[in-house]
Order: sequence, then C-alpha cells, then structure tokens
Amino acid sequence: MSNEIKQMMLNIGQRARQASRAMARASSEQKDQALLHIAKLIREKANEIQRVNQLDVERATLKGQDAAFIDRLTMTPKTIESMALGLEQIVSLEDPIGKMTALQKQASGIELGQMRVPLGVIGIIYESRPNVTIDAAALCLKSGNAVILRGGSEAIDSNTLLAQLIQAGLDAAQLPMDAVQVVTTTDRSAVGEMITMTEYIDVIVPRGGKSLIARLMAEARVPMIKHLDGICHTYIDADADIAMAIKVCDNAKTQRYAPCNAMETLLVNQAIAQQVLPTLCKIYQDKGVELRVDALTRKALEENGFEGLVDATEEDWQTEYLAPILSIKTVANMDEAMSHIEQYGSKHTDAIITNNQAQANRFLREVDSASVMVNASTRFADGFEYGLGAEIGISNDKLHARGPVGLDGLTSLKYIVMGHGEIRS
Amino acid sequence: MSNEIKQMMLNIGQRARQASRAMARASSEQKDQALLHIAKLIREKANEIQRVNQLDVERATLKGQDAAFIDRLTMTPKTIESMALGLEQIVSLEDPIGKMTALQKQASGIELGQMRVPLGVIGIIYESRPNVTIDAAALCLKSGNAVILRGGSEAIDSNTLLAQLIQAGLDAAQLPMDAVQVVTTTDRSAVGEMITMTEYIDVIVPRGGKSLIARLMAEARVPMIKHLDGICHTYIDADADIAMAIKVCDNAKTQRYAPCNAMETLLVNQAIAQQVLPTLCKIYQDKGVELRVDALTRKALEENGFEGLVDATEEDWQTEYLAPILSIKTVANMDEAMSHIEQYGSKHTDAIITNNQAQANRFLREVDSASVMVNASTRFADGFEYGLGAEIGISNDKLHARGPVGLDGLTSLKYIVMGHGEIRS
Repeated sequence: MSNEIKQMMLNIGQRARQASRAMARASSEQKDQALLHIAKLIREKANEIQRVNQLDVERATLKGQDAAFIDRLTMTPKTIESMALGLEQIVSLEDPIGKMTALQKQASGIELGQMRVPLGVIGIIYESRPNVTIDAAALCLKSGNAVILRGGSEAIDSNTLLAQLIQAGLDAAQLPMDAVQVVTTTDRSAVGEMITMTEYIDVIVPRGGKSLIARLMAEARVPMIKHLDGICHTYIDADADIAMAIKVCDNAKTQRYAPCNAMETLLVNQAIAQQVLPTLCKIYQDKGVELRVDALTRKALEENGFEGLVDATEEDWQTEYLAPILSIKTVANMDEAMSHIEQYGSKHTDAIITNNQAQANRFLREVDSASVMVNASTRFADGFEYGLGAEIGISNDKLHARGPVGLDGLTSLKYIVMGHGEIRS
Repeated sequence: MSNEIKQMMLNIGQRARQASRAMARASSEQKDQALLHIAKLIREKANEIQRVNQLDVERATLKGQDAAFIDRLTMTPKTIESMALGLEQIVSLEDPIGKMTALQKQASGIELGQMRVPLGVIGIIYESRPNVTIDAAALCLKSGNAVILRGGSEAIDSNTLLAQLIQAGLDAAQLPMDAVQVVTTTDRSAVGEMITMTEYIDVIVPRGGKSLIARLMAEARVPMIKHLDGICHTYIDADADIAMAIKVCDNAKTQRYAPCNAMETLLVNQAIAQQVLPTLCKIYQDKGVELRVDALTRKALEENGFEGLVDATEEDWQTEYLAPILSIKTVANMDEAMSHIEQYGSKHTDAIITNNQAQANRFLREVDSASVMVNASTRFADGFEYGLGAEIGISNDKLHARGPVGLDGLTSLKYIVMGHGEIRS
C-alpha cells in the first residue's frame, strides 16, 4: 500500500474518532435536525444529483459494465425521492442512545443498570448503489456514531456530492462535519487500510456480494457485521395445510428472485409430496422457474406428467441462486429436513409449514438460523418487516447482531453503577 | 504447523461441532445433572487431583518458574472444594437457553420474537490455573455450548485428569463426551490452529495476561471475547463527599492490587485536592503504595510534608500496574478528567465521586467504558458483584458482550416468526 493512501486513511480515521465523541453526546433533536436538513437538500438538489450521477453512469457504460450494474448505479427522480423519504423515516424512529434499563440493587448495595451507547466509528464498504451513502450514513448518525463510507469507485461522483449534502446537514445542526466522511480515492488499498485500522474503526459493515465479503474476511482485523449468503429453506411438513404450503412456497421463491431471503431449496415430506408438489411445481414452471430435483421428487412429478426437470447435484444444495431456479428434495421426515438444513444451509432464514405445534416448536428450537419461521414466507426476514424501521444489513454472524440489523445493532450496552460509597470487603 | 497437529485439531473441532448440536437440545435437567456429577467426582477424587497436580508443580519448579506462577498452578484441598462449589453455584443459575421474548404482532400479521440459543462451540485458551478447566467448561455446558479447552502446557496433567472427570459427568447425564475436550498436546501450534478454524469454533475466549491476548489478536480469524487491560480511574469531583472519597479510593487501590478492576490512576479536582489528598495519600503510603504524581499533586502533598513522591511520566498514565503503585493527577475540572480517561484509559471501569447529580449524569453518559460508576469502588466491576452468578471473563470489546460476561454472553438471540400463512406482497 502506498504510504500516501495510508496517511490519508489514518487522517480520516483520526477525524472520525474525534467526531464520534461529539456525536455520542449529540441530542436526539440535533441528530434529527441534521437528517431533516439532508432530506431537504436532497430534494432541492435533485437535478444536480441526477446530472452528477449521469457522469458516473456514462463512465461505467464506457467501461462496458452490464445492464444490472448500470441499473444499480443509476439514480432516478424516484430513487432520489426515496432517499429523502428514508431519511424522514429514520427521523421518526426512537433514538436508542442513552436509554437505560431499570437499576437493580445488588447484594453490596450498589445499583446496577445498563445504558445504550454508540459503537463509535462505523466503516461501511459497499459497491455501486449510491443510495447506500444516504441510508447508511443516516442510520449511523441516528445511532450516535461517526461513519466512514467507501463506496464503489464507479459511483465516486455521486457519492462525493451526496457526502457534501450530508456534511451541510451536519453543519446546519452544529454537528461535526467529520462525522460522515466519504473516501474519495478510488485506490483499492484504501479498503485494505480501513479493515485493519482497529484504533479508528470499531466495526465494518460490508454491503455487497459474497465475493466482496469473502475478500474482506480474509484480511480484516476490525470486527465485521457481515452478511454472507442466504441459502433459505422451506420444509413442508406432513401435517401442513396444503393450500397454505402452496401459497407460502410460491411467494418465498417467486415474489422476487434476487433478495437474500428468497427460498432456494424446498424440502417436502414424502407423505404429502403427491398432494403438494404437482400443483406447486406447475406454478413454478408457469413462472419460468427451473426445477432441480432429487430422485424421489422427480418420480412424484413425472408420474404427474412433468417434463424439463433437472437432476440436482451436490452443488445445487449449497447454491444461493438469486435467480428463477429452485432445488427440491423429498425427505422422509423433519429430522432429515433439519439435517439437510444443518449441512447445506447458511443460517440465514429457514421455515416450516405445519399445523403440528410440537413439530413447529422442535423446528424453532433446533434449527440454528438467524430467523426461523413457522407458516410464513422466508421473504419476511427483513428489517422493515420486523418493525426495526430500517436495516443496515442482515447479519449471518452469531456474535453481537444476528439477522436483520437495525439501529440497536449499531450500539452497545455499558454497565452503569450508582453507589453510595460502597466498598468491596 | 505440523500437519499432524492440524489434523488433530480439525478432528477435535469436528467432534465439538457434532457434540454442540446435542448440547443445544439438552434439557436443563440433563445439563445440571452433568454438572452435579462432576462436582461429586471432584470431591471423591480430591486426593488424586492433588497427587496429579503435584506432578505439574514439580515439573514447573524444576523449570524454574517463579513463586507466583507455582501459586497459580497449585491445587489445594481448598481450591479443589471451591471448584465443586462453583459447579453447584452454576447449577443454581437459571438456564438461559430457549428463553423467548414476548411475540409482537407486525404489520403483516406475522408474530415476531427472539429466542436465546447457544453460540455453538467455544474455544478457551488459558494459562496456568487448572481451575479454569472446570469453571469455563461449566459455564459453556450450562449455556448449551460445546467447548475446546487449551490450558497452559505446565498444567497438562491436572487438566487431563479434570477433563476425564468432566467427560464422566457428561456421560452420566447421557450427554456427548465430546462436548468438553481438552487439547492434550503441548505443541503451541495447536493454538494457532484453534484461533483460525472458523468452521469449527464460533468464539474464542482467551483468559490470561496482556501478552497472550496481544499474540492471539494478531493472528485470530475466529471472533474473540477478550479482555485486554484495566487502566481504571477514579475522579474525585469538587462536589465529592470527602470521607466517602477517601474510603472508596483507598478500597479501589488497596483492597487487592492484582485484579484488573483495581484503580491505577486517581484524578482529583484541584478545588478539593488539599482537603482530600493528604489524608488519602497518608493511607496509601502507610500501606506501602508508591505514588507517581504530576506537578500540582506534588505541590499539594509536599506542602503537607510528604516525601518519597515519584514524578509521573507519560508512560505512567498508560500503565496497568497491578501492583502497589498509583499515579495521581490534579485536574482543573471534570472535562479535563474525562479527556484524560479518554486518552489513557482502557475502557474497562472508571468512577466518579460526587454529590452533584448533574455531574454524575454527564460522567455516566460521556465516559465510554464498559463499566461507569458513581460513588463506588472500581473493584465492583465483576460478574459475581453484578449478580451474573459467574463470569467467563470481562470484555474490553464493544461488540456482543461488554464488561463482565456471564452465561448470556455465551449465547445469541435468533428471531422467531410465527405466521398463519402470511406472504409478502
């Protein structure tokens, strides 16, 4: 890494650390004032945002980026307005900072409680979507943290402008402008520095594809709240309501293909396979979903005249398709389903469809995933659906934050002791 | 690393992962039965434990280990009985596993809650105290985890015997013996493997001195719940009760010198320095505490006839003495005290002595330490004193667990969704 980049990043880090102290002390009113001011500026400057974003889009197009990439990069009047609405929504959330649990008197006489406080400095590493600059900054500000944002180099002009609007909003609320800094170098070594400067960054939230996360994991020294992959399962139990199973499993796979909480593997109890698979798989095929199946499922479907089935390979069970492809396995019982989930799942979100409460309870307790569901679509694993108001991401980790991460995930609890002169004996 | 050690560790890891699944499903009764059986065996085999421990002690003595080391290594009838009592105390704690928050209905109709579950496999890396083998294993078992224990090579005979008793206890309760495994090789590369085998270990809890932790931090890929150092401060405010200040600060420094929660630096408001320092420092000097002071403190003390003061250097402010040495600084106000704590503290435990509620509230909110105290001795920062029943350690980290870590720190919360056929639209 060039020494110049290293110095630049350390300087950014020092300023972020300094700003984080003021942010930790900021009142809810100040933070909300800054967020509302940013929303106002975004609306006022909507044309300029689009114009500057166009520079990024043109450069990316010349570079030959594909349509999906250009789509993620492009800001429209609608995406710009939704950034402003997102800010107003975060304003409406309760400020978590300073909240205290009730004090509990201990044997010695001291009174003990816990207070929610910011983590300090958050580093966000993301790819091409410029709206993450606003969304992530807003969540970090509301939770009293400073943030260092490192977006994709392709969005550099958009991100630089958005950062200016954020800093103007901070300034208007008498908060330090260094509380939100955008790394404006496109040198990749800046990321290497961010993920190792443990003195200045308390946690890294990487937002992006699996390859980005894997690369960061190999080198990071700063702790990460990270999302890896969502190989989500639904198991249709022998005691399932058949109509419900069909409706929920259709939704879990086809409502949207790209989100991490979409179902990738369907597990069906063999006792109910003949009743549920033909109807459900007809829906899938009509929607253009490719079915990759084990031998029992193939048999059940071919007996009902299905064609175009693909044999599922070992690799299919461990693949997050994020596409109109579904792997299906017929299992002997719930234990086989849970073993499959244990072996191939990614501990993201797994569901059971059953009317048997005992089975549901065992599934809830024994499946080791961030979200475990009974009779609901895996697509519900989401910060908004969970009432968190917003999410910085969905964590695959078990430590700290698990599943959809809202404002609380960007905070920590410290112990508070109120004494009256107590000493230890 | 030799391939043989690597294979051995992977094998231990695989067996631990396997056992962790059974442990997650174990009932509270089974876990308690195992713990009580281990306590019974420890009492029955007390003589054998002492005899085997003596082998370790003799080897360490021959190697020229110092008296403090030998003291930590040696097991007496008293330390053996206290292991058994510790097990019984952990049995009396409430089982955290399976506890659920109330279900909350969301906008879509789904009902959302969180359930407390084990982390999975815990790795404990510790030094010479063999009692950690029992204490740490018991906490991990009670919280439904499997554990891999790697104690100091000097305690290998003691640890191997204790592991056998633990495994006998597990077996008696029909729990998998692999739920507690002791690494019996003294090859140091085993530690290198433990801290990087992310597939088989979910969290590492290192218990030992700063140099051990620093070495692990440089190489670990597995997340750690770690304790680094405790540079604890007490600030005596201008509005302090003088008698209380003297009593509490005496206790914080001299009740015991070695614990991490002992005070290392005293900060005194200059408005009260003349009233509090002479009496307090007389107590310290009478107890043989060396005083390392700034110029203002020296002046205040020399005017009162004190001798033998040492000038505090920059290094003193950042030193965890764990010894009868105290650094003292006279400050202009609470802001200067908080700046000093921010610059030199270790975010462990810091206290204020004051009768001014507004000052106390600012100190509580603004000091960024795991434990922040008002009018109490820093020595209270401890899992037992906090009513956690036991502690696996004290965390200096902000993520996951902060401050004294009890059973809850060895668990995670997963989301539970109870649906009625809801789908996303």
